[in-house]
Amino acid sequence: MLASAGTVSIVADALREYSVKLAIVDPVMIATSGARLLPEDAVKTLCERLLPNTFIVTPNIPEARLMLEKTGRQPVSLHDVEGLKQMARAVHELGPKYVLLKGGHLPLTADRKVAGSEDQKSLVANVLYGDDVNEVFELEYQHSRNTHGTGCTLASAIACHLANGAGVANAVRSACRYVEAGIKMSVNLGKGSGPLNHFHSMQISPFPPGGFVDYVLQREDVKVAWHEYTHHEFVQRMGDGTLSPETFKSYMIQDYLYLVHFARANALAGYKAKAIDDVAGAAAIVTHIRNEIDLHIDECKQFGLSQAAMDQCEESEACTAYSRYILDIGHSEDWLALQVSLLPCLLGYWVIARRLHGLQASLKSPNRYATWVDNYVGEDYTAAVAKGRALIEKHAAKQSPSRVDELVAIFIRATKLETGFWNMAAGA
Amino acid sequence: MLASAGTVSIVADALREYSVKLAIVDPVMIATSGARLLPEDAVKTLCERLLPNTFIVTPNIPEARLMLEKTGRQPVSLHDVEGLKQMARAVHELGPKYVLLKGGHLPLTADRKVAGSEDQKSLVANVLYGDDVNEVFELEYQHSRNTHGTGCTLASAIACHLANGAGVANAVRSACRYVEAGIKMSVNLGKGSGPLNHFHSMQISPFPPGGFVDYVLQREDVKVAWHEYTHHEFVQRMGDGTLSPETFKSYMIQDYLYLVHFARANALAGYKAKAIDDVAGAAAIVTHIRNEIDLHIDECKQFGLSQAAMDQCEESEACTAYSRYILDIGHSEDWLALQVSLLPCLLGYWVIARRLHGLQASLKSPNRYATWVDNYVGEDYTAAVAKGRALIEKHAAKQSPSRVDELVAIFIRATKLETGFWNMAAGA
Repeated sequence: MLASAGTVSIVADALREYSVKLAIVDPVMIATSGARLLPEDAVKTLCERLLPNTFIVTPNIPEARLMLEKTGRQPVSLHDVEGLKQMARAVHELGPKYVLLKGGHLPLTADRKVAGSEDQKSLVANVLYGDDVNEVFELEYQHSRNTHGTGCTLASAIACHLANGAGVANAVRSACRYVEAGIKMSVNLGKGSGPLNHFHSMQISPFPPGGFVDYVLQREDVKVAWHEYTHHEFVQRMGDGTLSPETFKSYMIQDYLYLVHFARANALAGYKAKAIDDVAGAAAIVTHIRNEIDLHIDECKQFGLSQAAMDQCEESEACTAYSRYILDIGHSEDWLALQVSLLPCLLGYWVIARRLHGLQASLKSPNRYATWVDNYVGEDYTAAVAKGRALIEKHAAKQSPSRVDELVAIFIRATKLETGFWNMAAGA
Repeated sequence: MLASAGTVSIVADALREYSVKLAIVDPVMIATSGARLLPEDAVKTLCERLLPNTFIVTPNIPEARLMLEKTGRQPVSLHDVEGLKQMARAVHELGPKYVLLKGGHLPLTADRKVAGSEDQKSLVANVLYGDDVNEVFELEYQHSRNTHGTGCTLASAIACHLANGAGVANAVRSACRYVEAGIKMSVNLGKGSGPLNHFHSMQISPFPPGGFVDYVLQREDVKVAWHEYTHHEFVQRMGDGTLSPETFKSYMIQDYLYLVHFARANALAGYKAKAIDDVAGAAAIVTHIRNEIDLHIDECKQFGLSQAAMDQCEESEACTAYSRYILDIGHSEDWLALQVSLLPCLLGYWVIARRLHGLQASLKSPNRYATWVDNYVGEDYTAAVAKGRALIEKHAAKQSPSRVDELVAIFIRATKLETGFWNMAAGA
């Protein structure tokens, strides 16, 4: 607040001295409550010394009326939006490049006349006037007690948009929308005239850039599902070699059938990718899965099972549920959602295998499932996990908090379907 | 900063008086620079009076050392992460529920030993110790001059996460990640030790909730394309009735062919929807398009053209480009992107028809294209536009700023393809 004629003069001199081009002057003279905030003599000083170096002045109606009165201008009578325009033009003659006359003190009807009663109040008109612009910004009239600081907020928002490179009309339009939403989304705090909500368009990511996967795995709603999946009895028995070969065989067959669809899902990710590198990246993953499938075929040969025989096996419900779930995510959602649906498989196998690998040394006899473990701790697979994870991190950092919640829900669902896969294999 | 023993006592009394459960005490005694910030006598007071009512105390190593010294405890020698754990345990004996010992003054090697030289510094270990927790949080060692305020930030971030309901380990983990990213994403400002970047995970939407469509139409990169589309010569000539019937006929045929794919795209949106109301909503739109198609068939009958004959017509390139573009968006992106790709058609026809409708009164003779205009200003179509727009607004408010930019790019592309459609029709 400028508060006195002396302060006004000092500010006016400073603006001139530093050739400030975009000074926004909110002439705080009369509060919404009617309280006088600037002494009489200072009003005249403000008009004469400050306004000629002002880019936009943003008076409300009582302030505009006072400025006109103190500089000996004719009063303007207000009956409708035309009166507001005339008043803005009159203030413009005092020297500022633009005037934004705020019509909040004079709500209008839907026909742009001054409203006679509370239920006639339909909108508020803010009039922007300058040599090259003459525009009315209409705001919905809101019956709210939370309007404390609307003027300061509006002027600051205009300044921000101008500093950001917006043109004057766009800056004012965006600032009006910002304030309008700030009133609409305010929260009643304490008593009397409350503040508007300045944070209506701010979102805060629950993790820092690069921290998506860590965040997901530490979430309370993920932890339980993730532990069930990665510490499943089936897994433990692969780790200590106590899993029956028959059980392992039926798992291998179902995992083979699953991997075909997993490859299809990655091909779909290739289709959904935008840059050729990502399309090619998806193809590389499919090639990798092709190799993984060959290992499954080799393993099954040892059980006397040919690939043709594997192809004849019926998919279990768990296999169909999981594979078709990721394919449906792929079809009905975007590229990132598809990647997140594939993540529990990609990451989980690596996490499981690393843990089991650590246990191998303590086993009394060689583990018959060491090949399985070695495959998923291998350099090749480790690199694939790192690459897939980095790609997801890159995109996850750009998501909104509510989208992150949706992605986490997909991650949890896919993790549970992995657990279902172990259940199926263990019970087969 | 507590600054004196007197202040420490007052704060300690207040914590007791109000039974504060979650007091986080950052014992600011010694700055990163080595400067002493708390008088000697106050250290003892802090340990004896404040720590027993503290939920977490967060000393750095010199502070922990001083606290142990001033309370007559044995010094702890630090060679590795085990030393840090021992020091945290020693501070815990002073009474706080938890101790977070910050290891920033003693960077470690990859083997968790004290680093002997700059290039050995690999990580920083923060040790959390309490009766039910004993966890080490490792942060990447960062050679940065922007570490001013890291301690205050860490303590504040822990307090925020606890206030948000997080458990102590999760609160500390998230706070460590927050600070780590704050250093990593800092900007060099001025001279000396600079601040970290506190805003790395904050996103600000360029429009308030409900303001997406207004924002899009006011964007400089949209305005030109939108004007070309909605003020196209073809449109003007429909408005004043000077368009040749042959041109209109070929437009009707292509628009008929287009609408079939437009209906398919809406059916696809139904598939991609998650709630039954949205699935049913998409079906309602398809039904609406079915009726619109009937109008086209009726119009073409007047040109002596049967529906069978229309089906035989070849799609123009413009029709194929536009219709397959929206279908590809539908397949490769999410539900919202598909809706945005359909928006220029839905909204644009209404905007165009409303403008043309306003011109009808000034025409000298009745406009032969009045049926077209009337259809798109009709109650039915107006309601469809309002509904579609509201649905998009609801979802758009939840998007991240970078996603908004992607959606705008889709909107612009679809708008240009609409212009291509007029060009094709005008040139046919």
